[in-house]
Amino acid sequence: MKNSRKIKGTAAERELLHKFWSVGWACLRAAGSGSMKYPCVDLLAGNKVRKLAIECKTSKALIKYMSKDDIYQLQKFSSLFGAEPWIAVKFDKKEWFFISIEDLRPSGNSFAIDIETVKSRGLLFEEVIKDEGY
Amino acid sequence: MKNSRKIKGTAAERELLHKFWSVGWACLRAAGSGSMKYPCVDLLAGNKVRKLAIECKTSKALIKYMSKDDIYQLQKFSSLFGAEPWIAVKFDKKEWFFISIEDLRPSGNSFAIDIETVKSRGLLFEEVIKDEGY
Repeated sequence: MKNSRKIKGTAAERELLHKFWSVGWACLRAAGSGSMKYPCVDLLAGNKVRKLAIECKTSKALIKYMSKDDIYQLQKFSSLFGAEPWIAVKFDKKEWFFISIEDLRPSGNSFAIDIETVKSRGLLFEEVIKDEGY
Repeated sequence: MKNSRKIKGTAAERELLHKFWSVGWACLRAAGSGSMKYPCVDLLAGNKVRKLAIECKTSKALIKYMSKDDIYQLQKFSSLFGAEPWIAVKFDKKEWFFISIEDLRPSGNSFAIDIETVKSRGLLFEEVIKDEGY
């Protein structure tokens, strides 16, 4: 079960990685994020003007819960590295949406975001890579 | 043999990763560099002002050879991502030195660099992370 989640997670990260390369951004997946004591993120994407640190999440339900620790790591890594922190969320049969940390709702030991908030507040891939204003 | 080289390579990358975190830079190792069709690098390190893309090399001999493809990937990735390309070289029992691509010497299908050139042209870790002038 844990392994199958891990494989799906990797597939989701790779899907996004392909999207960044297809529009001329460089992107890489981080190795061994779980095995080191340092904050880590799933993906780093960049071009000459912008750097995005990305945590990837997929969900088959209508609400996605994520551990607070994952989000704190995203925040910490981005702040030190000098990158914009984004959560990329893909609900079943929907496109990828990019969410800011402030759009997450605390829910016990987790953060949560529902599909309606994602659709109203999230940016599509084409929107998140726009360089205007940077 | 190939596996033992890979393990040593990973250990060398982790050693450098610790050094960057110890001085307040964020750093991550790239996953599956060999398995994707995109240019990749071993490490990405960054702070608010600088981003370094790093290819790590270790050698027990007095000359280090590296594949031209590794270096072209470093060049390509850095240019797209908007990072400085560096080769981190560690000769046996010496410290890490950071070398620019232009300090490498073409040698057939490889690039080569000898220990004397590394010592005279390379930057020490403490020098490469200096933010003056940036």
